[in-house]
Amino acid sequence: MALRELRNDLLLRALKRLPTERTPVWIMRQAGRYLPEYRATRAQAGSFVQLMKNPALACEVTLQPLRRFPLDAAILFSDILTIPDAMGLGLYFEEGEGPRFQRTVRSPDEVAALEVPDIKSELSYVFETVARIREALGDSLPLIGFSGSPWTLMTYMVEGGSSRDFKRAKSLLYREPDAAHALLNKLVAAITQYLIAQADAGADALMLFDSWGGALSAPLYLEFSLHPMQRIVQGLKAVHPDVPVIVFSKGAHAMLDPMARIGADALGLDWGISLHQARALVADRVALQGNIDPAVLLADRPRIRAEVRLALESFGHGHGHVFNLGHGITPDVDPEHLGALLAAVHDLSPHFHQ
Amino acid sequence: MALRELRNDLLLRALKRLPTERTPVWIMRQAGRYLPEYRATRAQAGSFVQLMKNPALACEVTLQPLRRFPLDAAILFSDILTIPDAMGLGLYFEEGEGPRFQRTVRSPDEVAALEVPDIKSELSYVFETVARIREALGDSLPLIGFSGSPWTLMTYMVEGGSSRDFKRAKSLLYREPDAAHALLNKLVAAITQYLIAQADAGADALMLFDSWGGALSAPLYLEFSLHPMQRIVQGLKAVHPDVPVIVFSKGAHAMLDPMARIGADALGLDWGISLHQARALVADRVALQGNIDPAVLLADRPRIRAEVRLALESFGHGHGHVFNLGHGITPDVDPEHLGALLAAVHDLSPHFHQ
Repeated sequence: MALRELRNDLLLRALKRLPTERTPVWIMRQAGRYLPEYRATRAQAGSFVQLMKNPALACEVTLQPLRRFPLDAAILFSDILTIPDAMGLGLYFEEGEGPRFQRTVRSPDEVAALEVPDIKSELSYVFETVARIREALGDSLPLIGFSGSPWTLMTYMVEGGSSRDFKRAKSLLYREPDAAHALLNKLVAAITQYLIAQADAGADALMLFDSWGGALSAPLYLEFSLHPMQRIVQGLKAVHPDVPVIVFSKGAHAMLDPMARIGADALGLDWGISLHQARALVADRVALQGNIDPAVLLADRPRIRAEVRLALESFGHGHGHVFNLGHGITPDVDPEHLGALLAAVHDLSPHFHQ
Repeated sequence: MALRELRNDLLLRALKRLPTERTPVWIMRQAGRYLPEYRATRAQAGSFVQLMKNPALACEVTLQPLRRFPLDAAILFSDILTIPDAMGLGLYFEEGEGPRFQRTVRSPDEVAALEVPDIKSELSYVFETVARIREALGDSLPLIGFSGSPWTLMTYMVEGGSSRDFKRAKSLLYREPDAAHALLNKLVAAITQYLIAQADAGADALMLFDSWGGALSAPLYLEFSLHPMQRIVQGLKAVHPDVPVIVFSKGAHAMLDPMARIGADALGLDWGISLHQARALVADRVALQGNIDPAVLLADRPRIRAEVRLALESFGHGHGHVFNLGHGITPDVDPEHLGALLAAVHDLSPHFHQ
């Protein structure tokens, strides 16, 4: 299957480390609470979960940042936790508390009882959203689909929500490794089907958000986070060999070398490691996406521009860099500051591609 | 000044990368809530702050873990935030919320108004505690003194407590770098005096806890976290050249190479990077302290022993490793599990020193 013909395919070329005229840029959580139009649509939907499950409104908020800003990709508006929700765990959000589940999966028996849902029907709202966005985008821009990684989904399923130290999830790894693998196997199967179906519906690139990979020691990361992601990447490549895959294990700076060997096209980076250092570690095996601290957007515009220049210089000359933050944009950012960041990427990056 | 003559000087030799018969071990927060005798003494004191400011009781809780376990060092019972408290910010603890300050320092004017306290008198309770512990230890074991790092103290002073994203503190770095440096300069002066006075009172080794160094991008870490710590290390070495200094920037895995060049004797590590990888990065410039995930102590004893073996193998043969967790021991740990970890270090580590 060839790459979709798009008028702006900078992202897809950069993810494949092909030449581009400038550095493409998109922003994690670009459809988010910093935008007043997003807040209005969310209020109309009622809640975050209702917004995400409504294809018309989810499509609308996906498109909102593209109307304001010269971004090089759309990203599906959804959540990383749709699959455990489809498994019957009951996703909800407490104000200021992050995601929570009504039910948890903690014992080997609970893992055994967990069924892999019929992804196509249980998550049809996601694929309908993808199809609507694809239709609305036409041939203008690529669309990124995504899921949480198996280990990251497991932390929420075991803990019942966010955690500081992941004690219950880690205890399962240490005390019941067979049950942990059984749970991760079910998640690998579900996530693979899910991302294939997103690509079938029109996603041009796919991303695994391993938000909590950095919480694990090296041997546990390799066994319980990276290896399951490798199996997903293999499953995706078997069906959609030309759809680029991005893997982002936040905080796992010491794991970049093994991460670059699992067949992903690109790795996400946070600001804890410089693009220069990361590029030297991964050599020419993968593209890199990142990595400005979202706190930079709280600075004034000259400083924002200076930080963009530093990031571009840090990656250096050549192709294979997708500009992004190292984490989602925060609700308190002035949208005009994001505009300043994007303008700086457009202005300053062509030099690095000559 | 020669090293103090101690019957067990394994820690001091390991920090200097001198030969030892086995790997020395101590545990961050070894005097803590996992011990019933600690909880009893804390209840007697009234609150954490009252306990820490009472030299007799602070000495008592420092000694408690040494009565149970074959540890190779005592560590002063105190808090990383004593200096901002002595600056008049009013340290207190909300149950389950971590440390808080009654007053914050956020503007250039507030930074300018902040006075470096008379450390000797304002923090006399700390030096009295150190002297009591030193007296009680006799020539048995070394005593570790410590402080929070300048950047870490700054985060609490600016934010008013713990933070997820350090937005206010980072905004000061980006928007008011001169004020940030002015604040850090005052903290460098205070911390240097404070640690010199701890060594004068009987501390045999000194540690800087840079709990939030890992939250900064590489250039900000170097400028606002590492460089101030380097000035402290230089100040300490000028007065106490033979007292080993340990620097621990939690989460700053990509910064180990510059960290190994500031004159510290040892670096603390969390479990996000293997001892093997870290040892290769720092070569023979510093000793390494760490790095087991505290969650390991929730596993069963055979697994705890296996994890100790993995850590010893990861560092490999040779000297310059101080065994520790990568973060403080948590309140829910069964003390007997810590006993199993220590027994494994005693049993398994001599092999690596042959």
